[in-house]
Amino acid sequence: MSIEKINIKAIRIKIPKDSNVIIGQTHFIKSIEDLYEAIVTIIPKAKFGIAFCEASGACLIRYEGNDEELINAAIEACKDIAAGHIFVIFIREAYPINILNTIKNVQEVCTIFCATANPLEVIIAETEQGRGILGVIDGSSPKGVETHEDKENSIKFLRQIGYKK
Amino acid sequence: MSIEKINIKAIRIKIPKDSNVIIGQTHFIKSIEDLYEAIVTIIPKAKFGIAFCEASGACLIRYEGNDEELINAAIEACKDIAAGHIFVIFIREAYPINILNTIKNVQEVCTIFCATANPLEVIIAETEQGRGILGVIDGSSPKGVETHEDKENSIKFLRQIGYKK
Amino acid sequence: MSIEKINIKAIRIKIPKDSNVIIGQTHFIKSIEDLYEAIVTIIPKAKFGIAFCEASGACLIRYEGNDEELINAAIEACKDIAAGHIFVIFIREAYPINILNTIKNVQEVCTIFCATANPLEVIIAETEQGRGILGVIDGSSPKGVETHEDKENSIKFLRQIGYKK
Amino acid sequence: MSIEKINIKAIRIKIPKDSNVIIGQTHFIKSIEDLYEAIVTIIPKAKFGIAFCEASGACLIRYEGNDEELINAAIEACKDIAAGHIFVIFIREAYPINILNTIKNVQEVCTIFCATANPLEVIIAETEQGRGILGVIDGSSPKGVETHEDKENSIKFLRQIGYKK
Amino acid sequence: MSIEKINIKAIRIKIPKDSNVIIGQTHFIKSIEDLYEAIVTIIPKAKFGIAFCEASGACLIRYEGNDEELINAAIEACKDIAAGHIFVIFIREAYPINILNTIKNVQEVCTIFCATANPLEVIIAETEQGRGILGVIDGSSPKGVETHEDKENSIKFLRQIGYKK
Amino acid sequence: MSIEKINIKAIRIKIPKDSNVIIGQTHFIKSIEDLYEAIVTIIPKAKFGIAFCEASGACLIRYEGNDEELINAAIEACKDIAAGHIFVIFIREAYPINILNTIKNVQEVCTIFCATANPLEVIIAETEQGRGILGVIDGSSPKGVETHEDKENSIKFLRQIGYKK
Repeated sequence: MSIEKINIKAIRIKIPKDSNVIIGQTHFIKSIEDLYEAIVTIIPKAKFGIAFCEASGACLIRYEGNDEELINAAIEACKDIAAGHIFVIFIREAYPINILNTIKNVQEVCTIFCATANPLEVIIAETEQGRGILGVIDGSSPKGVETHEDKENSIKFLRQIGYKK
Repeated sequence: MSIEKINIKAIRIKIPKDSNVIIGQTHFIKSIEDLYEAIVTIIPKAKFGIAFCEASGACLIRYEGNDEELINAAIEACKDIAAGHIFVIFIREAYPINILNTIKNVQEVCTIFCATANPLEVIIAETEQGRGILGVIDGSSPKGVETHEDKENSIKFLRQIGYKK
Repeated sequence: MSIEKINIKAIRIKIPKDSNVIIGQTHFIKSIEDLYEAIVTIIPKAKFGIAFCEASGACLIRYEGNDEELINAAIEACKDIAAGHIFVIFIREAYPINILNTIKNVQEVCTIFCATANPLEVIIAETEQGRGILGVIDGSSPKGVETHEDKENSIKFLRQIGYKK
Repeated sequence: MSIEKINIKAIRIKIPKDSNVIIGQTHFIKSIEDLYEAIVTIIPKAKFGIAFCEASGACLIRYEGNDEELINAAIEACKDIAAGHIFVIFIREAYPINILNTIKNVQEVCTIFCATANPLEVIIAETEQGRGILGVIDGSSPKGVETHEDKENSIKFLRQIGYKK
Repeated sequence: MSIEKINIKAIRIKIPKDSNVIIGQTHFIKSIEDLYEAIVTIIPKAKFGIAFCEASGACLIRYEGNDEELINAAIEACKDIAAGHIFVIFIREAYPINILNTIKNVQEVCTIFCATANPLEVIIAETEQGRGILGVIDGSSPKGVETHEDKENSIKFLRQIGYKK
Repeated sequence: MSIEKINIKAIRIKIPKDSNVIIGQTHFIKSIEDLYEAIVTIIPKAKFGIAFCEASGACLIRYEGNDEELINAAIEACKDIAAGHIFVIFIREAYPINILNTIKNVQEVCTIFCATANPLEVIIAETEQGRGILGVIDGSSPKGVETHEDKENSIKFLRQIGYKK
């Protein structure tokens, strides 16, 4: 039952300039339409591209969006990850935080692996059957612990940009 | 702190004919009752079986459901995965999309690894302490990118089956 | 694209006595403030500590909470895991179930890896770029399947402690 | 600012045999499509009809569903209520509890006034501008307080029908 | 269709000392059990009482909770309001904000009319059929607009009590 | 208990040009900060103003936002409605649908009465104690039922503007 060979690989995702990426696991054929409509409803002015790996039948990479560069980047990321039922979203002129709760509530979505603008590696497992995402390496490892001054600056900054009252 | 030996294994899940599987991570003793009640409330006519791996104390596999074959399949999947605090749901005469948001909102549920009717392998890590799910291989890898004609057929199909307006 | 070396490691988390731990993946600078406010609003009387690994810029471990021991434990866990955009919460005098849905709904939160008081190992992948969580080993593997008597006792117990009607 | 005449009226809703009704307040042109898709996704086997009162422009009653009797009943209820941005759903072979959370999460939905199979009166206010729902009279007023025996029977019944563990 | 006589009344709710009240509209027989379990799971240490008006059949006021005074107060409030399918919750040693999202997510709950510790009047409509809640008068009307100094004091206070970072 | 005099009034809301309004019921002192942060996080580029009626203590109208005209309009609407614990949001360069689910999930929010750009009257009850919202008249009453041609045009339009696939 558990004898087959498994390769673990790190896939570096190519993130288009000034964009953010969201990667998740879903199921069902209408994922691409539902993700598209969810994003358009919440952030109609954002540029975005989505791609989704069908995991049975024709096993096509399906795609949607309103920006060709981001759509192509999402398709390329799906080709590179090549795991069934995963989706990749690139957005620009908007941030993952604008849409993350909406995407978590899409009825087919199982989980979100990451939402980031950092350098990103996706760790995948590969067996004879196919591939699956195990996790991500999102940016860099921590280099230290914030000081009290860092804390104050951080809160001050969030207020300056209007994100905290 | 990180010296112990880790085995990575792929567990093939036996999915009963015409059923779908949902696998997730939870915590707390009353997971099995809460999952049961959540499913029964949303899709009272579905056939289903749930099993859940207690991760401390007697470490029993707990189970619920209304269909013996699906309950047994869920118990077998839990035995095969053998990871603490995971749950497995098999449903028939209903689809994961009918209940996924409800399950995501169950108070003990941490995450959903997959929801699928495809051939499924669960990638697990095994240490001296026990086992954990790292990810899944859900169906097959993509074989190509959809064409414009594929897109039109796909939307047309979703409308034919009444899933999209 | 996938040639670099990956180390898979198991990190044992040191859980302070009588506390529970929640570990998740998030994004964005204000995660620590939003998690803090979410917890304080829901369980104002609980003792807790949160730490969060910034994944870019200064890459500091940020922290909040109302209990020094739990804050320090969260910082130590973040140092040990050392993966970008992950957070660790320790709580005492309250349970993960009290706050899990609230945390799942925090706008920056991607996923929750676990919520537990059991012995816990976090499986991480390490590449040249950094580290990421692949999964957890939450407590022990199952040792058997519950009997009908176990089932009855379990429901009876949930009613005795007032968790089920 | 508050000088105009207001009429308060009770509108008796005609509920088709063996059906339940859900009435709510929404906004935006695509409410009818989103409600339709939400219901079809969650309870594909149910019979239902939805109608929605546009509140500007052509001010048409829009409708959807898969059962002519229930669609017509929803249109009639909308005509009788005649308040801007309200919707009426009748369902059969399914219950409001199967879909209520899904409907509460539809992005345009403001609130749900009621979900019931009881005799129902909708209280509306009417001014020169138009009409609005103020509340509902859902079934009958209480006639007494349950006894301990009633409580036990009630729990027993919920377990018999499998709704509670 | 709208000829019958309607009485509009204001019902003053008797709120036990140091408690808060939540009033909402629900449907379905198991509301009382689901509300009880939701509250107990989120704030196990709180004192509370719930009552719910059945709207058909025996039309009993059903009740649950862990504090006799609060249970009785909830029953009395239900008797005074006497509207089908409404529920009243009194809590002490906890606040509505601790549980409001949990209650909004209970599958039977339609809407929440109010959550408050202020003097409270419930406006009801009464017809020959029964009664329904139209709205609430929650505390007092505003007496002025805050100054910049009020704003600063308010934020400062929220930080002092630890509710805002 | 129900003898006092009640006045029912219709308050016409002055909606600034090209803006939308959302009106709801909340509780708790930090509503204004939480609503502000929720909106800023989801639609950082929108112009908006919020006002909220404290219902006890100093009973001040509190306000926030990033656009003076909209803040003032929200304050004026709160003065006109003058009901405890209600809030009014005006937004421009964004739509209620962009933020409605986020607002429904704010922990203090009880319900949303309406979200609209239509002419709007708020129906309030006034007693000796204060005022409360009973409902709204949102735009105009329906003038007819859509034809099959209307239906097709409507779907076509939603696709043209990119809201439906």
